[in-house]
Amino acid sequence: MFITKPTLLVDTARVRRNIKRIAGKALISGVVFRPHFKTHQSSGIGEFFKEEGVASIAVSSMDMALYFADSGWKDITVAFPVNIRQIDVINSLAGRINLHLLVESEQTVNFLKNNLLYPVDLWIEIDVGHRRTGIDCSDGEAVAKLAGLIRSSRKFKFSGLLTHAGNTYRASGNEEIKEIYRDMVDKLYKLKENLRRNGVSDIALSIGDTPTAGIVADFSEVDEIRPGNFVFYDVMQYLLGICKEEDIAVAVACPVVAKYGGRGEVVVYGGAVHLSKERASLKNGTVIYGLVSLADGDTMEDGWGKVLRNSYVRAVSQEHGVIKIAEEYFDKIKIGDLLYILPVHSCLTVNLMGGCLSLSGRYFKVMGHG
Amino acid sequence: MFITKPTLLVDTARVRRNIKRIAGKALISGVVFRPHFKTHQSSGIGEFFKEEGVASIAVSSMDMALYFADSGWKDITVAFPVNIRQIDVINSLAGRINLHLLVESEQTVNFLKNNLLYPVDLWIEIDVGHRRTGIDCSDGEAVAKLAGLIRSSRKFKFSGLLTHAGNTYRASGNEEIKEIYRDMVDKLYKLKENLRRNGVSDIALSIGDTPTAGIVADFSEVDEIRPGNFVFYDVMQYLLGICKEEDIAVAVACPVVAKYGGRGEVVVYGGAVHLSKERASLKNGTVIYGLVSLADGDTMEDGWGKVLRNSYVRAVSQEHGVIKIAEEYFDKIKIGDLLYILPVHSCLTVNLMGGCLSLSGRYFKVMGHG
Repeated sequence: MFITKPTLLVDTARVRRNIKRIAGKALISGVVFRPHFKTHQSSGIGEFFKEEGVASIAVSSMDMALYFADSGWKDITVAFPVNIRQIDVINSLAGRINLHLLVESEQTVNFLKNNLLYPVDLWIEIDVGHRRTGIDCSDGEAVAKLAGLIRSSRKFKFSGLLTHAGNTYRASGNEEIKEIYRDMVDKLYKLKENLRRNGVSDIALSIGDTPTAGIVADFSEVDEIRPGNFVFYDVMQYLLGICKEEDIAVAVACPVVAKYGGRGEVVVYGGAVHLSKERASLKNGTVIYGLVSLADGDTMEDGWGKVLRNSYVRAVSQEHGVIKIAEEYFDKIKIGDLLYILPVHSCLTVNLMGGCLSLSGRYFKVMGHG
Repeated sequence: MFITKPTLLVDTARVRRNIKRIAGKALISGVVFRPHFKTHQSSGIGEFFKEEGVASIAVSSMDMALYFADSGWKDITVAFPVNIRQIDVINSLAGRINLHLLVESEQTVNFLKNNLLYPVDLWIEIDVGHRRTGIDCSDGEAVAKLAGLIRSSRKFKFSGLLTHAGNTYRASGNEEIKEIYRDMVDKLYKLKENLRRNGVSDIALSIGDTPTAGIVADFSEVDEIRPGNFVFYDVMQYLLGICKEEDIAVAVACPVVAKYGGRGEVVVYGGAVHLSKERASLKNGTVIYGLVSLADGDTMEDGWGKVLRNSYVRAVSQEHGVIKIAEEYFDKIKIGDLLYILPVHSCLTVNLMGGCLSLSGRYFKVMGHG
């Protein structure tokens, strides 16, 4: 296949390996593996998970839940606070599948109580320090009160406490990630114990995030893990030390359109509408929008090679990628060649590209935007 | 219409006003107004330009050129260095419309010479300091040499010199933008004079960028202006002082899903896959992902109101927007309400949202991704 414009390639051997690794860890820990499908948003990639025995998934929007329900998934957590404006689609899904929703306010629980047509599983979202969503973990009283409200209606099954410790993305290294995990488990146990004292037992603990899933060896203290990014990984995870370079399963093949010897830069067709404007910082503080590699052979099937040393995407505008290329590689690159850009944040790149092409030419479409 | 999820709204009265203002300035200056359509990517929005007498446009990809050619546009500049891998689509367009392409290397010009099936207009792209694409303006010799090569083939009409002074986006204020414009014109005139000495006369100068189009009063020294963003403007232009708050013509209506009194924050359904991860800095250094306003009445037709003081999008993840809300507004906002987010960079937001809805309910679809 001749690539003419920015094309997202996926190395499915890496995808399978990435899934197998975390699925195995979940199995040994005896926890439910509920992968987050927001990273790939594709029923085709979802099939690789089915092959590993995965039956329950997490998604980040009702549209995504609908899409995967249509692909045959029967047990879906929408890992996002209930948007009460979408009660119609909530009801249509609650009647078809085992739907899990996240709540954190009495207003939302009361709304659901009055408007739900079918029973759902409810999780109380807990904020263990990320400061995005969830009841602050120090507020055991609010958690107990909301649990009581949930248990007062037969429309709800109270599943337990769910958290996303996204603060691991700001960790300085593996030891800090383990500490954040330790601290998260302690906080959840404290809330669980408080609920038990309030007469609520038999609840589950569900945790998210790929850094934790990658670094922590044994999850037996919790009941469910919901990592998502690990399926493809990306430069952010690589720089955090969560994955190896050869675990990154997606790259955007971008045509070289210009070369600037004096600047040591090339420009590719491939910019913010392909890669996204997600940035990462190298150890020396340089802000980058991707790392760069070359073809690893003569055909697309050979995939991409090692990351080029001292080379990176320095800037992106809508369609341009400006790439710093180390001197040792500069003369090897010609106008019309393809560079393979490893994205900083694969979830956003996949969403923008709308699909990915395997090295053997199979196209995995991403769900359409609603 | 009841909005259930993040929805991009467009105020078409503002769009028409924004177009009229720049079209009028171009008319008075006696220059060709060739608006860049990458901001809206929509044939419907394009019609508003036709009403102002616009006949020639710029786009940022061959796919976009194809899309607008299919919508009846006959004179299109692809304001991006020629990607030789797309020679087939270049040929299919060159046979149908007056196609203008950008070149800056002998390799690309020779490739076109050998592979073009129909004549095209060629512009030499000049870098006047943005360090993205184009021949460095100090290299008059390279420009003259490339002009000679272009003029040696009957497949090409040599149109002139084209530049995008994107460095205006880093300007500290209007005076600096005027200086950058002054400096750009001087550099282009120097190159033009050098070409004249080499026997090449009767060439045009084409310049881009919305900051320049917004601030400079008279463009009569150049022949063509290609601003794009001004059609919608955005927070970036507003913070640069290029537009007023009430010129911003797009906002993403986002449902509130959670409130945090202690933090003075609310969370909306609306994140990086809706707004993009483009960031801007307030004067005090705070990094933001958007500004916030409330509905300006009871119906969608009323649009959105003034920007809320001391309130902004503090963080975005894939679907979450975390919004700092000043105390004076906090109690007015309820779960289930809509907040109107003014995007930092409208081009990227429009591209992600895939379309926009006018306040009276007309939907403007954005071209599909190829």
